[in-house]
Amino acid sequence: MSERYDIIIVGSGPAGVSAAINGVIRNKKVKVFGSKHLSDKLEKAPRVDNYLGYHAVSGPELKDVFVEHLNQMNIDITEEKVDAVYAMGEYFAVTTKDNTYEADSVIVASGVSNKKSLPGEEAYLGKGVGYCATCDAPIYKNKKVAIVAYHKHAEEEANYMLDVASEVYYVPVYGQPEKIREGVKVIAGKPKQILGSEHAEKLVLSDGEILADGIFILKDSVALDQLVPGVDILENHFNVNRNMETNIPGLYAAGDCTGKPYQYLKAAGEGQVAALNAVSYLDKR
Amino acid sequence: MSERYDIIIVGSGPAGVSAAINGVIRNKKVKVFGSKHLSDKLEKAPRVDNYLGYHAVSGPELKDVFVEHLNQMNIDITEEKVDAVYAMGEYFAVTTKDNTYEADSVIVASGVSNKKSLPGEEAYLGKGVGYCATCDAPIYKNKKVAIVAYHKHAEEEANYMLDVASEVYYVPVYGQPEKIREGVKVIAGKPKQILGSEHAEKLVLSDGEILADGIFILKDSVALDQLVPGVDILENHFNVNRNMETNIPGLYAAGDCTGKPYQYLKAAGEGQVAALNAVSYLDKR
Ligand SMILES: Cc1cc2nc3c(=O)[nH]c(=O)nc-3n(C[C@H](O)[C@H](O)[C@H](O)COP(=O)(O)OP(=O)(O)OC[C@H]3O[C@@H](n4cnc5c(N)ncnc54)[C@H](O)[C@@H]3O)c2cc1C
Ligand SMILES: Cc1cc2nc3c(=O)[nH]c(=O)nc-3n(C[C@H](O)[C@H](O)[C@H](O)COP(=O)(O)OP(=O)(O)OC[C@H]3O[C@@H](n4cnc5c(N)ncnc54)[C@H](O)[C@@H]3O)c2cc1C
Repeated sequence: MSERYDIIIVGSGPAGVSAAINGVIRNKKVKVFGSKHLSDKLEKAPRVDNYLGYHAVSGPELKDVFVEHLNQMNIDITEEKVDAVYAMGEYFAVTTKDNTYEADSVIVASGVSNKKSLPGEEAYLGKGVGYCATCDAPIYKNKKVAIVAYHKHAEEEANYMLDVASEVYYVPVYGQPEKIREGVKVIAGKPKQILGSEHAEKLVLSDGEILADGIFILKDSVALDQLVPGVDILENHFNVNRNMETNIPGLYAAGDCTGKPYQYLKAAGEGQVAALNAVSYLDKR
Repeated sequence: MSERYDIIIVGSGPAGVSAAINGVIRNKKVKVFGSKHLSDKLEKAPRVDNYLGYHAVSGPELKDVFVEHLNQMNIDITEEKVDAVYAMGEYFAVTTKDNTYEADSVIVASGVSNKKSLPGEEAYLGKGVGYCATCDAPIYKNKKVAIVAYHKHAEEEANYMLDVASEVYYVPVYGQPEKIREGVKVIAGKPKQILGSEHAEKLVLSDGEILADGIFILKDSVALDQLVPGVDILENHFNVNRNMETNIPGLYAAGDCTGKPYQYLKAAGEGQVAALNAVSYLDKR
């Protein structure tokens, strides 16, 4: 039986780590999924002037003080990508490639992806197009699968798929693949669109095309309604109220994934509000 | 003719100063009213652990880094108390004891007062009980006025009232008055309740009572609907949406005055959101 957390936090940007700090201060058993580097959006910012208390710092400097805050409170980050959060009624099941975790409440602070979708991607979503190869692998037993990969963690998913599918085509948009199994067909080229009729049938590249039964688009972040089935989405963001509550009791969201403006301080403030409301939700049960 | 600001900010706690920083970064002409010490709620906090980026600091230490941030951006705070914000249609008029300022948009970040109201205070509000002696002075020409003062700035209001009213009783809850004019009757004692029939008639103290036509309760902060006539209030806070918009176009609110949780980081995040939405409101005009 898996251990039950009070609060699971999906995402380690300013929103997620602020939520973690506030949950831990209120003595809750908290688990955070994300990266020990917190967020690419911190790592890549050249100069930050608008986080109250830090003027003219670089993104990495701001990241360092956030990491220091976590360290002082002994908060650790689990480096696993969350594939899905399922509302089970009395609790939540949070799945990663290898594990399932349980929690009484969940805060999603996954940020937003700034990658545009391919033409055809949304139209064929669920009809041959998917965002989680490992989740859907059983459907593609002995079939042809194409994987469009925006980050190197996708290599694991392609390697795994090779055990199931008859053919695996791998299009690494991010550059040279590092650890891809023999048998996976690595294809150079820029993905252009997805075509089909009832169902997706092929992935069109800048020079050529791949016929496939299943096409997976693997971005850093999971589309929000894929990540949390049944959640209410408003204009591509979680539909939350001022308490950061979603339509699912016990499920909160914070940061960029709840809408604009996209900013560190807004994200951190919302993480705090989400955590404190999750705490009162837990305390009322 | 008075100078027109893009954004006037009422309040200098974390919400107000975060709003100021974000407005200035977007090149708006900003004016902040409050205290150079920012907020008593920063000055008095023994230890703060939950402002992301600062762990185990004192409130005054956190205040110092906020002040440093303001200094680095040359943002000054005007030490005048705002008595009222009037929506004039095309602009806002912001009044203090001696001046009237104009702005195209206003962000109220006034915090909340944690002083409980006296029995009878709310019942007689507008019926002999008020929160701004200088505003209502003309009504009490040649009448008896009692002033319950929670802070020393109220001394000015009592001194001013002496020119108008026939008698001025002054109850300094905060301690020994410093600069009170001869003629103002300083009364020791703890205010207990306000009694009357149609209209307030007397202020009951721990030992004695004062008969008066007008009774003013002067707290650090102005009651929100007194501060902004016509604004929509929900459970004693400004009724705002996720963009920190009130029911009055161009008027935003942020921080404790918009509701719980009462926290620095939540306040600062909301100040940012209010400022960025005020900026887009201004840019659309
Ligand atoms: C170059 C650049 C400069 C910027 N400069 C500024 C600036 O000066 N000031 C400012 O206020 N803002 C700035 N921003 C915007 C700011 O970065 C974002 O608004 C902020 O990072 C949002 O925080 P967040 O916590 O919501 O999400 P993010 O910072 O995006 O963090 C989300 C984290 O969660 C992880 N994650 C997502 N999904 C999962 C999952 N399923 N499982 C596990 N982990 C997951 C992600 O990998 C990421 O690490 C800048 C952004 C960029 C790109
Ligand atoms: C002892 C204590 C300890 C605390 N500890 C913590 C903690 O550890 N962590 C945490 O997150 N929070 C803490 N808080 C709560 C926190 O102080 C508040 O949530 C926060 O200060 C709210 O910020 P604000 O900007 O909304 O308002 P405030 O900080 O209340 O600031 C409002 C400012 O505006 C000024 N103002 C109001 N009306 C007017 C007017 N009409 N004209 C001009 N100026 C005006 C006020 O004088 C004040 O300076 C603590 C509070 C107290 C009292």
